[in-house]
Amino acid sequence: MILMKYTGIPVRSGLYVVTGMEFSGGRPYREVVSACINGGAGIIQLREKTWSASRLIQVGREIRELTRKSGTLFIVNDRVDLALALEADGVHVGQDDLPLPVVRKLAGNKMIIGVSAGNPREALEAENNGADYIGVGPVYPTETKKDTRSPRGLEILAEIRQAVSLPIYAIGGIKLHNVAPVIRAGADGAAVVSAVVGAADIAAAARALTAEIERAKKEDSK
Amino acid sequence: MILMKYTGIPVRSGLYVVTGMEFSGGRPYREVVSACINGGAGIIQLREKTWSASRLIQVGREIRELTRKSGTLFIVNDRVDLALALEADGVHVGQDDLPLPVVRKLAGNKMIIGVSAGNPREALEAENNGADYIGVGPVYPTETKKDTRSPRGLEILAEIRQAVSLPIYAIGGIKLHNVAPVIRAGADGAAVVSAVVGAADIAAAARALTAEIERAKKEDSK
Repeated sequence: MILMKYTGIPVRSGLYVVTGMEFSGGRPYREVVSACINGGAGIIQLREKTWSASRLIQVGREIRELTRKSGTLFIVNDRVDLALALEADGVHVGQDDLPLPVVRKLAGNKMIIGVSAGNPREALEAENNGADYIGVGPVYPTETKKDTRSPRGLEILAEIRQAVSLPIYAIGGIKLHNVAPVIRAGADGAAVVSAVVGAADIAAAARALTAEIERAKKEDSK
Repeated sequence: MILMKYTGIPVRSGLYVVTGMEFSGGRPYREVVSACINGGAGIIQLREKTWSASRLIQVGREIRELTRKSGTLFIVNDRVDLALALEADGVHVGQDDLPLPVVRKLAGNKMIIGVSAGNPREALEAENNGADYIGVGPVYPTETKKDTRSPRGLEILAEIRQAVSLPIYAIGGIKLHNVAPVIRAGADGAAVVSAVVGAADIAAAARALTAEIERAKKEDSK
């Protein structure tokens, strides 16, 4: 069980699915998100960089309804206003988004705040400023996100693991076949886009990843 | 004197300057905004569609400081979280942004909310949902904003004036030579980008526009 650091909110599994409709082959949002939930995802993040806020609100309301029923956490990318309006469980910000102290002030003490960190310094700063978890990546080469820094690999993940006690979600190019090394390097969970929402059977892909993450954790704790 | 409809906040002049740094020839934000204020602008809106939130926060803090001293209103485009974090006087949303009831709930009762309206139906909806003012345009052809609907001209402005009692700011292609007809058609003020921030002497351009708007209003009330 992963516990968010600041809010203390528990997460039901180590699989963190970031939505990105351009990877789901035109399937309706409701279907994609339902399948992720059925597959055991602990967190669903709404991230659609090119969408208008009015469209994000509409889809976000559907995700809120689906995730609430199942106990899956719902996190909104970037925008605190959208997260508040949707009564999301949290918001995720990058290093170029609103600064963490600003986000915490707006979001209050009950909302999960995740921060993207690319090195131990950013990770420690996030921990000191009241982040709940950090996203670290890209751990492997990825085609999903065009604006990331170059892959830092598993070494930087291990370094960050040494630096902070925050839950760490690794992101970037993670698939079923390469998720175990990420957990062994110190990640508490794995964030994926195409490996789940791009799969023919989304629920099966989510289920397999969830199980593989658990398996790697048990192996790790032996 | 223009009075915001919902909050009752007064505005010191009819000139509403929307920032857009690509039109100001690389001059520093502080210099541009100071000149707008010295030229008598009633409202300064921060609108930089391509900027990251972290950059908007930095520049927004400067604008907040400058506008607070002078009694100029400071409005943030699109993002309620940014407006709240900056303690801005208001936020402006378009038809594709967060819906007005959502914005009012997040922003509270003391923050100005402006809404872009392209026809009497949208204007009336904004009025009924608690907008403070509406932006109507483009009234003339414009090169500043690429994503607007086609120019609706002064006729639609006059129709909207008939439909609502909200303060109306006309926008789109407004310059010193064509602002008077806009006021005569029923606008309370004029929103401009390049006519002010693109001028060689920003303060002089703002001053001339402010005076011309006042002149047209007096003429109108004869």
